[in-house]
This record gives sequence, C-alpha cells and structure tokens, in this order.
Amino acid sequence: MSSTYGTIFKISTFGESHGPAIGVIIDGCPAGLAFDTDFIQHELDRRKPGQSRITTQRREADEFEVLSGVFEGYTQGTPIALIIRNTDQRSKDYGHISEQFRPSHADYTYQTKYGSRDYRGGGRSSARETAARVAAGAVAKLMLAQQGVQITAYVSQVGKLKLEKPYSELNLALAEENAVRCPDPETAEQMFDYIDGIRKQGDSVGGIVDCVIKGAPVGLGEPVFDKLHAELGKAMLSINAVKGFEYGSGFAGVEQLGSTHNDEFYTDESGRVRTKTNQSGGIQGGISNGEDIYFRTAFKPVATIMQDQDSVDVNGQPVTVSGKGRHDPCVVPRAVPIVEAMAALVLADLYLRNKVAKV
Amino acid sequence: MSSTYGTIFKISTFGESHGPAIGVIIDGCPAGLAFDTDFIQHELDRRKPGQSRITTQRREADEFEVLSGVFEGYTQGTPIALIIRNTDQRSKDYGHISEQFRPSHADYTYQTKYGSRDYRGGGRSSARETAARVAAGAVAKLMLAQQGVQITAYVSQVGKLKLEKPYSELNLALAEENAVRCPDPETAEQMFDYIDGIRKQGDSVGGIVDCVIKGAPVGLGEPVFDKLHAELGKAMLSINAVKGFEYGSGFAGVEQLGSTHNDEFYTDESGRVRTKTNQSGGIQGGISNGEDIYFRTAFKPVATIMQDQDSVDVNGQPVTVSGKGRHDPCVVPRAVPIVEAMAALVLADLYLRNKVAKV
Amino acid sequence: MSSTYGTIFKISTFGESHGPAIGVIIDGCPAGLAFDTDFIQHELDRRKPGQSRITTQRREADEFEVLSGVFEGYTQGTPIALIIRNTDQRSKDYGHISEQFRPSHADYTYQTKYGSRDYRGGGRSSARETAARVAAGAVAKLMLAQQGVQITAYVSQVGKLKLEKPYSELNLALAEENAVRCPDPETAEQMFDYIDGIRKQGDSVGGIVDCVIKGAPVGLGEPVFDKLHAELGKAMLSINAVKGFEYGSGFAGVEQLGSTHNDEFYTDESGRVRTKTNQSGGIQGGISNGEDIYFRTAFKPVATIMQDQDSVDVNGQPVTVSGKGRHDPCVVPRAVPIVEAMAALVLADLYLRNKVAKV
Amino acid sequence: MSSTYGTIFKISTFGESHGPAIGVIIDGCPAGLAFDTDFIQHELDRRKPGQSRITTQRREADEFEVLSGVFEGYTQGTPIALIIRNTDQRSKDYGHISEQFRPSHADYTYQTKYGSRDYRGGGRSSARETAARVAAGAVAKLMLAQQGVQITAYVSQVGKLKLEKPYSELNLALAEENAVRCPDPETAEQMFDYIDGIRKQGDSVGGIVDCVIKGAPVGLGEPVFDKLHAELGKAMLSINAVKGFEYGSGFAGVEQLGSTHNDEFYTDESGRVRTKTNQSGGIQGGISNGEDIYFRTAFKPVATIMQDQDSVDVNGQPVTVSGKGRHDPCVVPRAVPIVEAMAALVLADLYLRNKVAKV
Repeated sequence: MSSTYGTIFKISTFGESHGPAIGVIIDGCPAGLAFDTDFIQHELDRRKPGQSRITTQRREADEFEVLSGVFEGYTQGTPIALIIRNTDQRSKDYGHISEQFRPSHADYTYQTKYGSRDYRGGGRSSARETAARVAAGAVAKLMLAQQGVQITAYVSQVGKLKLEKPYSELNLALAEENAVRCPDPETAEQMFDYIDGIRKQGDSVGGIVDCVIKGAPVGLGEPVFDKLHAELGKAMLSINAVKGFEYGSGFAGVEQLGSTHNDEFYTDESGRVRTKTNQSGGIQGGISNGEDIYFRTAFKPVATIMQDQDSVDVNGQPVTVSGKGRHDPCVVPRAVPIVEAMAALVLADLYLRNKVAKV
Repeated sequence: MSSTYGTIFKISTFGESHGPAIGVIIDGCPAGLAFDTDFIQHELDRRKPGQSRITTQRREADEFEVLSGVFEGYTQGTPIALIIRNTDQRSKDYGHISEQFRPSHADYTYQTKYGSRDYRGGGRSSARETAARVAAGAVAKLMLAQQGVQITAYVSQVGKLKLEKPYSELNLALAEENAVRCPDPETAEQMFDYIDGIRKQGDSVGGIVDCVIKGAPVGLGEPVFDKLHAELGKAMLSINAVKGFEYGSGFAGVEQLGSTHNDEFYTDESGRVRTKTNQSGGIQGGISNGEDIYFRTAFKPVATIMQDQDSVDVNGQPVTVSGKGRHDPCVVPRAVPIVEAMAALVLADLYLRNKVAKV
Repeated sequence: MSSTYGTIFKISTFGESHGPAIGVIIDGCPAGLAFDTDFIQHELDRRKPGQSRITTQRREADEFEVLSGVFEGYTQGTPIALIIRNTDQRSKDYGHISEQFRPSHADYTYQTKYGSRDYRGGGRSSARETAARVAAGAVAKLMLAQQGVQITAYVSQVGKLKLEKPYSELNLALAEENAVRCPDPETAEQMFDYIDGIRKQGDSVGGIVDCVIKGAPVGLGEPVFDKLHAELGKAMLSINAVKGFEYGSGFAGVEQLGSTHNDEFYTDESGRVRTKTNQSGGIQGGISNGEDIYFRTAFKPVATIMQDQDSVDVNGQPVTVSGKGRHDPCVVPRAVPIVEAMAALVLADLYLRNKVAKV
Repeated sequence: MSSTYGTIFKISTFGESHGPAIGVIIDGCPAGLAFDTDFIQHELDRRKPGQSRITTQRREADEFEVLSGVFEGYTQGTPIALIIRNTDQRSKDYGHISEQFRPSHADYTYQTKYGSRDYRGGGRSSARETAARVAAGAVAKLMLAQQGVQITAYVSQVGKLKLEKPYSELNLALAEENAVRCPDPETAEQMFDYIDGIRKQGDSVGGIVDCVIKGAPVGLGEPVFDKLHAELGKAMLSINAVKGFEYGSGFAGVEQLGSTHNDEFYTDESGRVRTKTNQSGGIQGGISNGEDIYFRTAFKPVATIMQDQDSVDVNGQPVTVSGKGRHDPCVVPRAVPIVEAMAALVLADLYLRNKVAKV
C-alpha cells in the first residue's frame, strides 16, 4: 500500500527491475487532456540508461505501451495504464548477490521486512522503478503546461564541484545540451571529466539537483500537513539515493535574521502582488505565492561500486561483495528528469485539489 | 482534506489560533494502550509558550481534555479526541493586520486561495496548531515506548552558533536542562545569550533541530513513496518555518565517494547484523535497518519581528507593517518537542503498517 | 481508522454514548459557505431523543458548539470541528450490562475485537454517534442547497404497515407534520398507534425509510467502485440497525424483463435529455443522470427490548438479560434525518469530486 | 480516483472493454503468500464469456499475465500487477452506437460527465472490468483460505423463479455443476430453460445471487463507517447491474419484532460463544461474530437487448437503438464468481485491518 502517491491525481507504480515489466496506473487524470505520446517517450528517453559513457551501460529501449484510459488521442477520465517491458535483464549478473547483503543497498532491510526478496537487480528497490514515475510525470507535465506551468531541473553540484551562480543568472535551457545536465557549459565539462574519472576508479560520487518551477498560480498547496514544500520534500525523498531536501533559503536561511530574510510585498506595474526577494522559494504558509518555486535535492554516491567491500550473507556470515554488473558512477544527470517528474506529480495533484478550495 | 496525517495511526487536527479551541482526533490508535495523561500534559508543557524569556510571552496553560476513546485508563480502539481551549487570545493585538499582508507569513496566500482568512494570530496558519500534534505525538510515543523506541530531539544550531559534536558524543538528556534545549551546556549558554540579544533587537533568527531515534526495529518504512525518511521529511517540512530536511550523511554526503560512504555490514557478538558506520542514518531502501535513525531539520528565522516592514494591504496598496504582539525570537527551543511528536507519529504509523507486511 | 468518510468532503466522527462529548471534524468543506447555525441545530433537533412518546425518553438537548473552521459566519476552508456534550447519561442504568452480552448488540463483537469495551450505553456502537453525522450532514446540505439539490426522506413502512403510494403521488412536506415522519397522514396515524402498542409490550419493530433527491446535476458518482449508488449504499448500511439497501427498481426489478425495465431517453421541451421512466433511480453506470435519485433503506427492529432474554456473560456463562433503560420501539422516525444527512454527505463529496472530472 | 478499493489490501483496476488490455494492481498483499496461478485462472474461467448458450458468445480466453510482485512462486509484499489482453473485440459491432445513448446504459452519463467516452463495447463501463476484480479476488481468496475462510455464492432467483430453500438446506457445491449456478438441480433446470427462452426473445431478465461465508473469525469489520456489511454492500453495489443488497434477515426483517428477531447467545460444547439464530447474518455492530456471514445481491435485467428501443443521440435527436452485438440474457450465472471475488476483497482488507486493532 505504499506504491501509491497523490490524492486526486493519483499514481500507483509496480514492477521489479528484472520482472516482466514495470508500469504505472494514473487514476484521477481529468478527461479531455491531449495525450502526447511523443512527449512522454521523450521524457523516458531523458531518463533511460546508456545515454553517455558516464551513465550505466544497461541497454533498455524503455518504450512504453498505453493499455487504457486514452481514446482517440485524449484522456477519458478513466485510469491510464502505462507499461514498459524489461528487455535487457542479464539476470545472471546478479545471481551472486542472491545470498549477500550489498552495503548501503536495500537487500538486508527488504529481506528482514518481507522474509524474502527478488534480488535480481535490486528487484522492487531498483531505481528502474523511477521510469514509471517519469512516464506518469510526463502526463502531469502535459496538464500543467496547459496552465502555463514549466518545471526545469538541472545539476548544480557533483562531489565538491559546485555551480556557484543562482538559477536566475543561468540559461536553464542549456542543461539539456550536455551529458551532465548542468546549464553552465564550463562547469558541465569539469563535472563530466570528474565523473568519468570516478567511473574509471570503479567508484561513485554524489550530487545535487536544483529545480525551478515557473508560472505556478497562487494557491497551490494545502495548509498543515500537505503543504506544497512538504509534498515536494516527500516526493523528492522518495527517489532512490536522496538524502536531503531544502527549498528557498533552505539550510543557509538558518543563519539569517528575520529582518533580512523576510520577503517584503509590493504591487508590480501590472497590479500583481509580488515579493521583492524570494527567500520563501515561492511558498508561504505551505501555499504557492506566484513567485518562482525553487528547491534543491541532495543525492548520495550510488551504493553500487566496482570494488570489493566487506559484508555479510543472509546467514550473517562474513563475505566479500565484489562489484559487478553495470552502474551509474553519479546518479544526478539521470535524476534530473525524475526530479522534474515528481515535481510535476505533486503540482498536478495540488492543482486539482485547489479547484475545490472555494464554493 | 489536508489536516490529516497517517495511514493507520491517523490524526486530524483542527483549530485556529484565536478560535474557541484547537484539537486533534486520533483514528486508528490500537485498543489496550495505557493512556498516561500526565505524560501527555508534560509533552504539551514542553511546547507551551512562556517557558523562558527567549520564548513568546503569550500565556496559555495548554491543558487538554479527553473527549472520547479512553475508558478506565485504556484506549478502546475508537477515535481519541483531545481538545485544548484557547484562553489568552488578545485578539485586539491583531486587529491591525486584518487588512495587511505580513511579509513571509501565510496572510497573502490564504487570502488568495480561500477568498478570506481568519487573521487573528494567523488563524489556522499559526504555529499554535502544533500543540495538537504534540498531544497526538505523545500518544504515539506511549505506544512506541512499549516497543522500546525512544525519540530525542535537540537544538544543534542557532544562527551561526553550531554544536560541532556529533550526537554520539553528547549526553542528550542534558537538552531538557536548559531553555535552549541544546545538550551541550556551554553552547546552550551562548545560544541563550545570542537569542536574547536578537529578542532585544526585535529581530528573529533561525536554527537547526537534530533528532535521534533509538531502539526502532528493522522493517519500519515502506518501499517506493512512503519510505521512512520520505515520511519523516514530509512530517518535518509540515512544521511551520521549516526550510530543509536531511538524514544520515545528508547534504554533506554529496561530496563523498561511494567507497567511503557505504556502510559495510558485520555481525555483532550477539549475532545481530549491524553496520560499521551509519551514513545511512538508520534507513536503507526507505526501511529502518536497526541502527540509530538520525535526521536534521532547518528552521528559518520567525517571520514575526518587532520592526517596521514594507508590505501591501488586501487592496494591493503599500503599507508599513509594524511589529506588535508577542513572538518567539527563535523557534527552535520550542520546536524540539514538535519534531519529536511528528517523528513519533510517523513511526507509530509505520510500525502498525509493518504488522501487515507478511502473511 | 474507520470513523472517517469521504474523499474530499471528509468527515471524522468521535465519541462514546456516555463519554464527555461526541463530535465531528469536517476536513474538506470549501471556503465561503454561509454557516447557518440555526439550520444545523434544527437538523439535530429532528434527530434528538424525546420528540414524542414513541421515541426514547432519554433527554439530551443536543446543542452543538463550533470549535473551529468558521469565521465571521463563513467557512474558511479549514477543518470545522463540532462537538455535542453528553448531558443525560444515567450511567448507572447500564452498570448491569458491563458483564453481559446483549443479544443482537455489538457487545460481544467489540469485546472480542478490542479486548475491552466502554459498555455504558453501547459506548462507540451507540446510535448516539449519528448525531455527529447529522451535524456534518447539515453542513453538506447547506452546500448542496446552493446547487439546488434537495434531499427528503420519509418513513414508508413500519412492521407490515406499508405506504403503498409511490413518492411521486405524495406530498413529502407532510412527513415532518407527524411523529412517525410518514407523509400520508392516515398511514402515519396507523403507524403511530402500532408503534405505541409495540412500546407498551416492551418490544420493538423494524421499518423502511425512503429517500428522494431532487435537483442533482448530471455527473455525480464515479465509475467502478465509487458509483453513486455504491456510496449511498455504504453510507446507509453504516447507520445502526440497517439491514438492506435498494435504489430505483431495487429487488423488485429482478423480476422484470429488460424490454420493460429499460428507461428510454427523450428530449424534453426545454432541450434537456430525460428518461421516460425512472427504474434507474436517477443513476446510470453509477453516475447521476439528472432524474430524481431514489433509494430505500431497511431497518431491523431495535435490539434493545424491555423483556428478558437468554444470553451469556463475558465468561460465557448463561445469564438473563433484563430490559432496562430507555429505547426506541421503532427507529425509523428518528432515522429520517440520519438518512438525509448521510445522503447529503455522499452527494457533497461526489459533487466536489466531479469538479475535477474534466480539464 | 475511483478505480481503487481497499485500505490495506488495496486494488486498482484499469482498462476499457475494447482497449488493448484490462488489469489490476494489488498494492498491499502481504509477502509470503503462495501464488497459485492455476487457481486464479480457474476463477477467471468461471467468469469468462461463452461458457454456455445462456451467456454471451463473445469469445475471450481471459488468460492473465503476471507483470510484477511474484518471485519464485510467492508474493513479495510489492505491488502485484495482473493484465488480461482483450482479444475478441469486434469493434465494428459497436460503431453504430458511437452517436447514440443506449437506454439504461452509462452512455449518456459518461458523455456528460467527461465530455467524451470510449463507446466501444461500453468502454470503461463495460462489465468486462469485473474480470480484473475476479483476478484480484482470487488472490484474496488464497490469503483467506489460509485462515480457513470459504466464500460461496450461488443463484437463488431468476425473474420470478425462486429457490425457496435456505442455504443451510442446500448442497452449495452443486452450484458449479450447472450453467445457471443454482445449487438445486431441478430449479437450475427451470431457470436455464427460462433464460434460454428470454434469450430467444432477444430480451433479458434479472436475478439474485446469495453468498455465504464460512469460517470467518470474530472481529472482521470496523465500527462506524467501515462496518463489514457496509463494505460488502458497497462492494456488491459497485458491480454492474446491481440494484440492491441485504444481509441476514434483510428487508424481510423489517416486519419482525425485536423479541423474535434478536439472536440469543449461548456457549456451545466447545466453549465458543454462539448465537441460536442468525438473523444478524454473522455481523453484529458491523463486526463478524463467528457465525456464517450471509447476504443477497439483486441484479436488474441486463440493459442490452436484441430489440429496437427509442432513444436520443448525442445531439438530443430521436433515434431508434437496434440491439446488436452479443449479450447475456441474464447476468447472474456469471455474476456468481464476481460476487465471491468482491466479498473476498472486502474480507481480505478487513482481515488485515483487524491485525492492528489491539496493541
């Protein structure tokens, strides 16, 4: 009962890394939305493995099939089921881990919680599950685009390499121009080389993905528990390898004084209420205020490395876990479309919830 | 539909800052739990205003009444309703803001989303709502204590003043000995003086609350969306003034390599599977692994300050917002029991959900 | 976690028959609804005990207090908490049943499920809980009335005494003119005398409540599980003592042929699509079609009777249960406002859900 | 958001009658359940079309594929996705209804609610969706069978032909021996001939399905809204063509007196608390009491008939709807496994919910 997210625009994902297929049902997408299959495939392609030499060499076409909910090119208000067949599974690569607990993976906790686990490629705990989120998120993006909402994520840090400029000084469109998805070409090149070096060492490294949402109307987010940033935080933290989330001034805001941190209001020339600064990250009292929504998500170094590590087996006996298989030395380039997809799912749901806020 | 949290151990809070009462219903607390009213009142007392000169001088006894769900000292499996009457409301202090949007408060977003707002003391957006969470969290703590789970939060940073020691080197019990709730007495004193100075300036400052959970069994947390840390993150981010959340190695983990970041497994002398390090913060694949659960929550400087600020009124006209009323110059000392309460609510729910993981 | 109903217009009730209070939180009522306290009290008065000599002589004023969610006469989009203090409890009347299982009551099942029970007046299983539903239902009615939706229930059968006329031949407004709430004065009088006779025997008898909803727009109800009639059915069956539910042609429709049962469409003079007959009870494919919604709910004879009955005690030993306390010899007159309230809650929720059906 | 049922054992169905596939995700099935694919296929075969000449001649193998959640023959606690490809679609049979509203179908209400509809074979409103429920219900049955719970439904009425004997006097196993699924061979034969005659007339007729659940433990069902019979009622009413539901004494119980209707308790020779009679249908206060659970579900005559009917088109113009395609002249024989499946889904969910009733 935990593979479901959303209150009105509700998704349920399913599938193991090496089972027959992964997929998602969207139950609650409104009727009448033009269903752009090319766009959805494009989003899946942004996430798929094998895009460059700094991502895993697993080869999956990640082509999706629509099983329901779409008729003559439009959504019908009925559940939309999307599936992606698993094609390049190489299960034999994983046979050796059937009895071992890989460090900082979910092997031990799944085995203990459920009494068994599908060990092939991490089974349900594999990041492959996020392809289903990207597919669903693409549908959410289609709905939001109709409302003028644009979501853009990019890589702002890899290891200690930081993009120092704020997003307002960047051309975010450049992020898609390079394999790292960093919108500053020079920094992107440094990051690429750094990740490639880490890859050659058989090691991995972490990074940070920033996300900016433009065009969101005032009013998205619900008071108390389902605040916009609380939902965004949960959504981001539910992505594999995420260790932290902050929005607006974030952790750094802690050190400021209220007198400098507060965002003063003014009325702009068009008569719209605006804030002079945006330490709030576009969210006040858990509700969007019409400014850019801005947040950052921290990813740890991927747990799979091509080095020997000490561990124990399912009987608690010491073993050496040897790195095999294929992996991403740094997850953030492929995490960019996942962050965007989860943000889209959060906003789509809160957009629909906001439709019933007033009589 | 947003004042409800939890799947099995489900709470619904209600109440405005200056309405007749605030309160909470717990729907899903198992029957047979000894209902310790003294403990619940003790937890409320830890959160209540007026505890020292660095917290707001609003005077509320915050005594709660049990309306249902408890019979002869035990929970009955039926909804537990707890209410706290609002006693010291001084609504006239707030009349001046009925037409103004205070910077970095929820005034503007509520007004726009709902078409009106109860402006008295922030109405529903007031942090007073968290008293209801603390009451419910105390019930969750009672259930968890039976399972050997102990939750302890403390202040680790105020402005730029940081407690540099990791929690393992601290005597966490000392946190309750001082008004700041920092377990290092010397740092606590510095923090107190700093906050008091800020108070005299009529300003405010942010801070960080750390939380450590000991004794949690392996298996709490659900795969995919309702990961333990995703639920903790949402719960913390839903607290007023929170801007960020991280667990285990957190944002700093980004800069590490996988080879040093991974937590290798071993079997301890009692035969239990353990990890040598705990960068995972006690959570792997979204599920508790039996190590200490550890996370940090960042609070911004409180938006209410005793200084003049530029803003606009409900008609978009420029106004000067003058600081009046009572406020906390730094929210973190009183946030400690709130963080603990939300953590308890998350764990109580996931503990019950874990009971149905296997046939 | 079972005292909650609704997806958007969500209610949570609480309270035991002889505890301090009962009440309800409405989480999801839109902002901007004029909150008519007189109307709500009027609805509670229709349900309250002691209205005539054929209802229980328990005396409860059933005055409600609003704890939150309403400001300056309007709902705020925040949770509305309503409580009703229990005043005439006479707990000593019930002491004798603390150790006994009353036949066809919930004593045995509660005791076994939860390991204990608040036996005073049935505790949580008491029909007193329905006062909270009536209060919440009154708020739902206020919202629906703005949309032109009118809900009217009435007694159509008591024991074997049946009101033979269909609702279209009755003046439903007459139902409130007599103690039985049957809109046919002559039948009402027979029913009254019959119930009064049953009362004198210390016995009880069942009955049927019919309900007609006029003015509902086309489109209420969701496909598949949350069909309008499935939600109505669940709502009615959740009322104490209900044994059956049917809508439109109901059980009698079973004996018809499709060629006579089908409701043919035509276009009326105003251009609106209508059906010539209404065997569908205003619902097709689970969705309202604009015709009158019509359903019937069967109530068993109340389990509490003033006669000796064989039973067992909590240790399984034979006992004689003696009828004491106060009771309704026939529940249907007071069930009328409860049926209406539950219907209103169903429609209010589906009305809001329908707002997000299309982009 | 309405194709989802259940709180812990949660299912989401998807699929249109003539789309690529229908299916279901079960999110919340515990780990460790032996997944008997033969049994699931057997249940689907009981529902599939073309079983005899009194059911629709549509030919669908209804073979299902498992996409996730099962590994080495056991459930893993992760979502179980099952799909059934649509093979015999003959969409051209339905082209003529793309512009027409068939009487007593969902065409008009879907078109109005969503602004469009997949008219092919009824699209989402087709009873074909129930195949997904039967597949999920079979998994629920597997879990319940481990607890000794057995669910058996059968046809008790077709048109005016009634099986007069109570279930206790029948050998329910005989129901599967004939095409009507009536456990009394003689009545079954009459029913078969009657339905066959109706079929030849191009007409349809209604019927009633009874259901008996043996072996359910005491304690299933939740107080207040999610009473066992309220959940069963909703589940049954959500099946296409259902018009009524009753349990235990049902509508007939209305005419009884409390003194004869009450089920007196006694302790049987094994020391178990029992009731002498079972007018309660195995449910008291919404919770199972250990006696047989018994309920009845009324199905209307199928709306599709092979006769001309008056109606209107999507523009409100008069049209004649001509019966074409294939249909069931009486739905109850094939409804039997659907009723059982829905009952199993209700009980599986309440069984898991009951696991967290006590500390």
